[in-house]
Amino acid sequence: MTPQDTAPAEPARFDAVELIRRKRDGGELEPAAVDWLLQAYTDGEVAEEQMAALAMAVFFRGLSRTELARWTAAMIASGERLDFSGLSRPTVDKHSTGGVGDKITLPLAPLVAACGVAVPQLSGRGLGHTGGTLDKLEAIPGWRAALSNADMLAQLKDVGAVICAAGSGLAPADKKLYALRDVTGTVESIPLIASSIMSKKIAEGTSALVLDVKVGSGAFMKTAEQARELAVTMVGLGQDAGVTTVALLTRMSSPLGLTAGNALEVAESVDVLAGGGPADVVELTLALAREMLGAAGRSDVDPAEALADGRAMDVWRRMVTAQGGDPDAPLPRARETEVVRAGADGVLTSVDAMAVGLAAWRLGAGRARREDSVQAGAGVQLHAQAGDRVRAGDPLFTLHTDTPERFDRARAALDGGWSVGEAAVDLEPLVLDRIG
Amino acid sequence: MTPQDTAPAEPARFDAVELIRRKRDGGELEPAAVDWLLQAYTDGEVAEEQMAALAMAVFFRGLSRTELARWTAAMIASGERLDFSGLSRPTVDKHSTGGVGDKITLPLAPLVAACGVAVPQLSGRGLGHTGGTLDKLEAIPGWRAALSNADMLAQLKDVGAVICAAGSGLAPADKKLYALRDVTGTVESIPLIASSIMSKKIAEGTSALVLDVKVGSGAFMKTAEQARELAVTMVGLGQDAGVTTVALLTRMSSPLGLTAGNALEVAESVDVLAGGGPADVVELTLALAREMLGAAGRSDVDPAEALADGRAMDVWRRMVTAQGGDPDAPLPRARETEVVRAGADGVLTSVDAMAVGLAAWRLGAGRARREDSVQAGAGVQLHAQAGDRVRAGDPLFTLHTDTPERFDRARAALDGGWSVGEAAVDLEPLVLDRIG
Repeated sequence: MTPQDTAPAEPARFDAVELIRRKRDGGELEPAAVDWLLQAYTDGEVAEEQMAALAMAVFFRGLSRTELARWTAAMIASGERLDFSGLSRPTVDKHSTGGVGDKITLPLAPLVAACGVAVPQLSGRGLGHTGGTLDKLEAIPGWRAALSNADMLAQLKDVGAVICAAGSGLAPADKKLYALRDVTGTVESIPLIASSIMSKKIAEGTSALVLDVKVGSGAFMKTAEQARELAVTMVGLGQDAGVTTVALLTRMSSPLGLTAGNALEVAESVDVLAGGGPADVVELTLALAREMLGAAGRSDVDPAEALADGRAMDVWRRMVTAQGGDPDAPLPRARETEVVRAGADGVLTSVDAMAVGLAAWRLGAGRARREDSVQAGAGVQLHAQAGDRVRAGDPLFTLHTDTPERFDRARAALDGGWSVGEAAVDLEPLVLDRIG
Repeated sequence: MTPQDTAPAEPARFDAVELIRRKRDGGELEPAAVDWLLQAYTDGEVAEEQMAALAMAVFFRGLSRTELARWTAAMIASGERLDFSGLSRPTVDKHSTGGVGDKITLPLAPLVAACGVAVPQLSGRGLGHTGGTLDKLEAIPGWRAALSNADMLAQLKDVGAVICAAGSGLAPADKKLYALRDVTGTVESIPLIASSIMSKKIAEGTSALVLDVKVGSGAFMKTAEQARELAVTMVGLGQDAGVTTVALLTRMSSPLGLTAGNALEVAESVDVLAGGGPADVVELTLALAREMLGAAGRSDVDPAEALADGRAMDVWRRMVTAQGGDPDAPLPRARETEVVRAGADGVLTSVDAMAVGLAAWRLGAGRARREDSVQAGAGVQLHAQAGDRVRAGDPLFTLHTDTPERFDRARAALDGGWSVGEAAVDLEPLVLDRIG
């Protein structure tokens, strides 16, 4: 029984407590109820504590495909939508669920643009052990993340690629709900994760989308089953909204490449654009580029050529310059370094992504609270990857920070996160699965 | 991983998000974590939305016996405790989980006091379809619910019984948490219900406690299984806290007695104290009185005698007078009445407690919001109970209200809530079970 049972009720069409109880007890919320809920929450009419209780009920009960599609649509409808239909080229965007050393967006966006497809890449800052794309690019002297919608569109027309901060006008319901989930232990819900990601990507107006769903210790999804469920959910949401959507499940048990940290990762990305860089970073960049080109109807183009012949580097330089950055300026370096060395001869049998991510975070590369700043030069540089032979005394990791009192806790994070042994290493493939 | 993993953390001993996630994932909260959580919530350091998410996680995961005992103790520790050890007599209190027409506290408290045991009865106001004891007593001209602790103790010494409002100093954590649960769909959790009731009763300082756990359509617990689980949980909590605790499971499929409404129920209670009144009200009053006397070590006294010889009525009159009420003043009567009549001859086969409670509420006897006022004279008067023979045209219910526009919705609530048939009625017993 609810207060609606008494005579002069409010004109509200739904009662928040009734909807919470219905979801809690395993019932389904009809489309109009979902619309009302998210609009009333955005307007402050449904209180934070009510949405927190509902989010926890969703954690336990899930959302049906119908509920989820409507939930996502309601979050999109809470704000503005971008429109790139005026561009002469197709658009495609990529989203990664986040991993350690995941700098792929940096070489990927200019590479795909160099192949003739526009890439409007709205990105975020990092929180916790995974870095944020904007934090990385902000290591470049002068580069700025904030663009107006008009500037973004102009840069897309002119350069073909833009990586910038999402404006506050896109899916404000998601913005509010994400901040709430972060403090109420309700982040780890597959429908809520999927709708959060997809509402922003659909509102952004891209015509195709490639998802990089990370699996492993350094990823949000620890198992392939969880990652596959998330990928299938997101691909379904994208397709229901008319956006060509493909997902790759990729390995995040060990860090990507040889760097975790903002300026360190920019330098590695530039190496890749220059035709070098670690093999795994190159492999994943090309795999995602092929998916993006395919999703945009341009599978006739080979991105390996655009990487090899310097066209991707040209777009990178123009993209950085267009946002105020100087692609030739020296990148910031941390004031202090320490080296962790191998204690014995053997094979580096494992390098745990979470241990490296946590160490980089503790060195100052990441933030604990949204309002914290990050150190541009801080992070972890790897001198070997899992499977490499090492000798006693060889450097394995160089730790970088401006604040040397952080070394102890960073070393503690790495302890037990790597091992040297005798056995040969049988690494999982980098791309584990494809859903599309 | 939590913000604690970075260097300069707050001095807080626990992280609210980590505790929410642990409970969400089926883990156990250690005693110090429970203490911290409830103190930090009372102090406003743990936010309402965090407690809402935790309460929903508790709804799904429950609390272990150890967690629940600590949770209850922490709610008690958040405020003051009363102490009646200076009284020369033992103390015993009763708590009902709430039902329609449940006026039992009114005759019971003076009856038990008349048998030599002190009754410090802290009560509440009604919300929803069940009335509140204080709302009922406030129908008596002049009677006031608010007493200082000193006045309460003086009245207990002098009269032996006091029914008054709980001060805001008792279990403030519970007060805050209950208000939160009410708006977040987290009321229906057995450990949270049990700890809410028991924290107040234990903080109140009574040495013995009898619980009347209602079962049926008009009760919070619809099934005997749920009611038994709640009763067992509360009895365990009381015993763990050193309070002799007994519970009766009692029938609430049909209303208690022949009245539901504030002044109407006071009048019926006075009938019982005068040696009359409906048989079911007398039966339950005596059953609970015997349990209370037994729990206080006075099972040698027969309460039926104190009811029959007028001693209970004497205590009632002194109790009402001590709180400013005039026991001889006429009770308020509603301005308007309407009668619902039987359409055929037969047996009244059922009278649904929820239907009658809802009708009384809609007539103005209850409140939809905490800040609403109630009509003293409003309610439903029954002219027959389930099992009684009726004839076509006989009055079954008289509806009372000051605001006749309410009649239609009250009649709608009663529709389908009673039936006249041929079959004899096999009523459940009034007392269904005893747990102690």
